[in-house]
Amino acid sequence: MKTTITKRMTFCAGHRLFKSGLSDEENLKIFGECSNPNGHGHNYVLEVSVSGEIDQTTGMIINLKTLKQVIEREVVAKVDHKNLNIDVEFMRDQIPTTEVFAGKIFDILDKALGKGLLARVVLWESENNRFEVSR
Amino acid sequence: MKTTITKRMTFCAGHRLFKSGLSDEENLKIFGECSNPNGHGHNYVLEVSVSGEIDQTTGMIINLKTLKQVIEREVVAKVDHKNLNIDVEFMRDQIPTTEVFAGKIFDILDKALGKGLLARVVLWESENNRFEVSR
Amino acid sequence: MKTTITKRMTFCAGHRLFKSGLSDEENLKIFGECSNPNGHGHNYVLEVSVSGEIDQTTGMIINLKTLKQVIEREVVAKVDHKNLNIDVEFMRDQIPTTEVFAGKIFDILDKALGKGLLARVVLWESENNRFEVSR
Amino acid sequence: MKTTITKRMTFCAGHRLFKSGLSDEENLKIFGECSNPNGHGHNYVLEVSVSGEIDQTTGMIINLKTLKQVIEREVVAKVDHKNLNIDVEFMRDQIPTTEVFAGKIFDILDKALGKGLLARVVLWESENNRFEVSR
Amino acid sequence: MKTTITKRMTFCAGHRLFKSGLSDEENLKIFGECSNPNGHGHNYVLEVSVSGEIDQTTGMIINLKTLKQVIEREVVAKVDHKNLNIDVEFMRDQIPTTEVFAGKIFDILDKALGKGLLARVVLWESENNRFEVSR
Amino acid sequence: MKTTITKRMTFCAGHRLFKSGLSDEENLKIFGECSNPNGHGHNYVLEVSVSGEIDQTTGMIINLKTLKQVIEREVVAKVDHKNLNIDVEFMRDQIPTTEVFAGKIFDILDKALGKGLLARVVLWESENNRFEVSR
Repeated sequence: MKTTITKRMTFCAGHRLFKSGLSDEENLKIFGECSNPNGHGHNYVLEVSVSGEIDQTTGMIINLKTLKQVIEREVVAKVDHKNLNIDVEFMRDQIPTTEVFAGKIFDILDKALGKGLLARVVLWESENNRFEVSR
Repeated sequence: MKTTITKRMTFCAGHRLFKSGLSDEENLKIFGECSNPNGHGHNYVLEVSVSGEIDQTTGMIINLKTLKQVIEREVVAKVDHKNLNIDVEFMRDQIPTTEVFAGKIFDILDKALGKGLLARVVLWESENNRFEVSR
Repeated sequence: MKTTITKRMTFCAGHRLFKSGLSDEENLKIFGECSNPNGHGHNYVLEVSVSGEIDQTTGMIINLKTLKQVIEREVVAKVDHKNLNIDVEFMRDQIPTTEVFAGKIFDILDKALGKGLLARVVLWESENNRFEVSR
Repeated sequence: MKTTITKRMTFCAGHRLFKSGLSDEENLKIFGECSNPNGHGHNYVLEVSVSGEIDQTTGMIINLKTLKQVIEREVVAKVDHKNLNIDVEFMRDQIPTTEVFAGKIFDILDKALGKGLLARVVLWESENNRFEVSR
Repeated sequence: MKTTITKRMTFCAGHRLFKSGLSDEENLKIFGECSNPNGHGHNYVLEVSVSGEIDQTTGMIINLKTLKQVIEREVVAKVDHKNLNIDVEFMRDQIPTTEVFAGKIFDILDKALGKGLLARVVLWESENNRFEVSR
Repeated sequence: MKTTITKRMTFCAGHRLFKSGLSDEENLKIFGECSNPNGHGHNYVLEVSVSGEIDQTTGMIINLKTLKQVIEREVVAKVDHKNLNIDVEFMRDQIPTTEVFAGKIFDILDKALGKGLLARVVLWESENNRFEVSR
């Protein structure tokens, strides 16, 4: 039996999909309306899952408040109400698709949580589009 | 008895809350993180309600496909994947709060639908913040 | 101050939109794909609202279990897993649009609850289409 | 045209429905399983709506952060993770039905917000049961 | 690390659960109210997941618009507003349970997407019943 | 290909997180507000998943009504509107965190369903906190 705990958090951010070095026309061809020059944005929903053994003293895998603080400090504080292309250090020189964004969040949280605790990161960019990174 | 029909649609857009003529510091004081210089964005949910009599031939107040086309043409096509501060004609020189945005959408749809059909516009900027304009 | 209590219930049903006396072509023109000859169906969400004074002995306007039983007996039992065009007495000879359907449910519950208790019936035919009948 | 802004917040609490002075049997008859002696609880969803004029300087009816702080301080801090029958001053000697609870929240927020700003309080005790107090 | 992208789409359809060769009574015994002779229907929610490597030029596993077009063309266009028992070629001679339906959709999309891209199909027939087919 | 069917059900319960043998202060340090002496509660959402082969006679892995009855009888009837610390036999002497609670539910349903049918139990204690036990 494997036990997993998931914390759901939300934030909003702006972005524009484009690859530097390509013209606006080429970017439009690849990214469509997501490449509009003045950018747009989303309400993102982030679900972070941790798997592990239940501690017999606390009945917990990890304290949800601790998990929330780590996500808040390492991710939400850096991206909420920000522009992913300009304001966010760890997205610099990246195409800010939600696949890439979710992968970066996985790396950051994996390092911050340590011990191989992180099992999965799910990132929704809209109610119909969802991205998942897992071991 | 009053009958009302509501169509729900979604779009995403970018914006930055600020009042021209004020400094970045003054804007930050009023609008907080929503005033970050490089902008952010949201997934908006738009609910448009029409009240009226049921037509005996069709069993409808208004054909939902017609209503959807009007909302699509008059609103969604003009704002989806756009920057509200820069790309959207009807938001020019406006503070793009969702209150103001919802009011503009109400005016546009009221004119487009005519005959006093429009009863209410609800606009969600996040799962926790909702704005409503009604007669 | 006005107090209102709302019970949400769900059911599913099949229907085909058409007006008897019209040809399949004419029905298709008015009702589109909703007029496909072999029918389709929906998961309906029904929200029934009752307004009134709070009883000082119970702290309730109406007991939610009573309200649920009335809706179950008068509506859900008659329409759940049924074909609205064929199986449902109170929809006989009606165009089964959700506007018309919601109006019939309002009439039935208004009579069953009595004393002008019923304030509003909301009926969702999909996550994007909602119909409301109120006093 | 009337503009309304709604803030949604969540909290959880325990309660037991019973009327003091009645026996356990009598309480069970009125309140059913909600009267189980050791209590149970809910995740409540609270929606607070404020109506008014849009301020031309800010584009807002009321700053959502201010509204959130008032709800947080006046309601959520007093009820979250509490037992409504024992821990909550303003519910003392009340039957803690959600009708009564919503009415008390309306009174508290109406006084705290002043100027007749408060338009409506909606309180969900479950995904199927919703209570609304409005002017 | 494994990256997965999921597209959510909705459609509605009618069906009746029955096994040809059995009597109405026998079908009723197995399928209950789902076997009512005149059929009923559902709003289905379909979630299609694709796993793979992120393309360095686009930052994507697969373009979401392409994925949406494939699902639209191969599945939604064939089942939306249709009767699963009568109108849908790939459901002919099948018991249209949602398990079977989801399996057929998996097969169709697996062939259409090729290269072993398809990871999972989830099909909801109601908010409480969900079916999943995965490798 | 693997097929999984999931039934979603809801219930509400009260609980207080604490470890017997520790002082109120020590419990408060570990469990925070969840350790408030008079308890609180939640609306729980339970999702039970069963994997297996599709029966060719019924088109089902397991009849959803049977699955629902088992969950109702073995779990919901024992915990709904109850206090997990006091009223629930299988939670006696357990810290009623949702991790532990979900694990107990997995064990109970695994035994009741038999044949290794049970694949996963997911238990939400709030819209932001979810716990999963799987093989």
